[in-house]
Order: sequence, then C-alpha cells, then structure tokens
Amino acid sequence: MQKVDHVGIAVKSIEDSIGYYIHTLGLKLLAIEEVASQNVRVAFVDAGNVKLELLEPMSDEGAIAKFLDKRGEGVHHIAFGVTDIRSRMAELKEKGVQLLQDEPKPGAGGAEVAFLHPKSSFGVLYELCDKSGKGE
Amino acid sequence: MQKVDHVGIAVKSIEDSIGYYIHTLGLKLLAIEEVASQNVRVAFVDAGNVKLELLEPMSDEGAIAKFLDKRGEGVHHIAFGVTDIRSRMAELKEKGVQLLQDEPKPGAGGAEVAFLHPKSSFGVLYELCDKSGKGE
Repeated sequence: MQKVDHVGIAVKSIEDSIGYYIHTLGLKLLAIEEVASQNVRVAFVDAGNVKLELLEPMSDEGAIAKFLDKRGEGVHHIAFGVTDIRSRMAELKEKGVQLLQDEPKPGAGGAEVAFLHPKSSFGVLYELCDKSGKGE
Repeated sequence: MQKVDHVGIAVKSIEDSIGYYIHTLGLKLLAIEEVASQNVRVAFVDAGNVKLELLEPMSDEGAIAKFLDKRGEGVHHIAFGVTDIRSRMAELKEKGVQLLQDEPKPGAGGAEVAFLHPKSSFGVLYELCDKSGKGE
C-alpha cells in the first residue's frame, strides 16, 4: 500500500451534504459521477492530500443503502491506492486476509477496486483502488 | 482545512492489531504514546500521505471505550490539520457548526485538538488538529 487514495463516506443525499464540504469546510468539489455497478452516485471532494468520496445510494439496494439503514451516515471505507491490483489481492490472500470478491470490480473514476473483509482488518473496511489501467 | 492529518481508528488492542498494519499491509509504525487526557493509548502508522491513528482505550471510561461498546472496532474520526485552531473553531461556530468543546484540548503528539459534532457533519466525527504550537 503506497498511500490512501480516498476515504469513502456514506451520505443519504449528496445534494444535502455537499454544501457542508464546500462552503463550511472550504473544500473543493472535484467530480460527481454514477457508479452503476455499485448502485451509487459519488462526489469526490479534494481534502488536499486525500480525497473524500461521498457515496449516495441510487436505490434501496446495494452496500451503501444497507450501511445507511444499519449504521446511518458516516465513514464507510478507506481506500489504498495500489498498482497491479490482482497481485496485491493474491498477496493479501496468502497472508490470510479475507477479500470480499475474487476479482476486481469497476469503481468510480474508471478504477478497478476490491474490498478487504472488515473481520480481517480489525473492523475497518479497506478498499484496494487501482487506477493504473488509466495511466494514473 | 488544508489537509487530512490522520484517520483515527478505534481498536480493542494495539498489541493485537498492529501486526496487521505492519506485516500484512506493509505500513510503518511511527510512534506509540499515551494521551492521558483522552484516556487512550495511540499508535501512529504511516500510510504515505496520511497517518492512521489506532486508538486503544486505557480503561472502560472515555469516548473510545464507549465507541467500542456501541459500534465495535472501526473508523472513529477524520482529523484535518489546521493552524490557529481557535480561529478555525470560531469560523465554524459562526457557520453554525456545533463543536464538542469550547476550548481546544491536548491531543496526541503535542497537538491541540477539537471535535466537530457528527450531527453537524453528516455523520462523520471530524477533528481539528493543530500542531503549529510545536513548530510543525
């Protein structure tokens, strides 16, 4: 893991919460996009050295909708920026880490992503986020 | 807010969890210290661009012990690095943000810290962390 790419935050509504990040905290909105594969709309906010990723469910289905139902709004995951995500996944599996998927799946910004089970990570949902396919 | 200084993570035991961060994720332990004012032992782990702050309660009292009781291990807060923390607190109050204390309190690493109420911040516990008194 070289660095933290972003911290994912579950919100009920980007429209309702984005003003807090922009006007109150003084941060900059980078982009808003839909990630159909994860059934969420995401807003990326620039927090200087890392991004904050606001995640809003697009329906009652999906992980973010379930998270909001169970725990309410708040921090959902921490994403490490990686390259060669399949090798990183294999290394972690060898070390006994349980992954939530066997293959990377498409994430926001054209990234390939995979999640580590919080039970392996002392309660934290960590994501591996590989944008190297985009030349970043 | 210029940048994220660290992400605070509540753990039951630094001794039990630190190996995951160091050996499994390959991150570097920076320091372990006690913050008596908050009744916690903290381990700072270098995640490249930000630090991860593992927070272990030193007794059954205090915010981290209560958090673990209620929600279990996981992300506890996100800390913005700031300078002139009293002015930042006053600005946020003027903007209608509820703070958890009127005066900064001592945090880890000699910082002065203050917390924003999660109700003001769409479920996220944000910390202001000012190390400028230390010349950082």
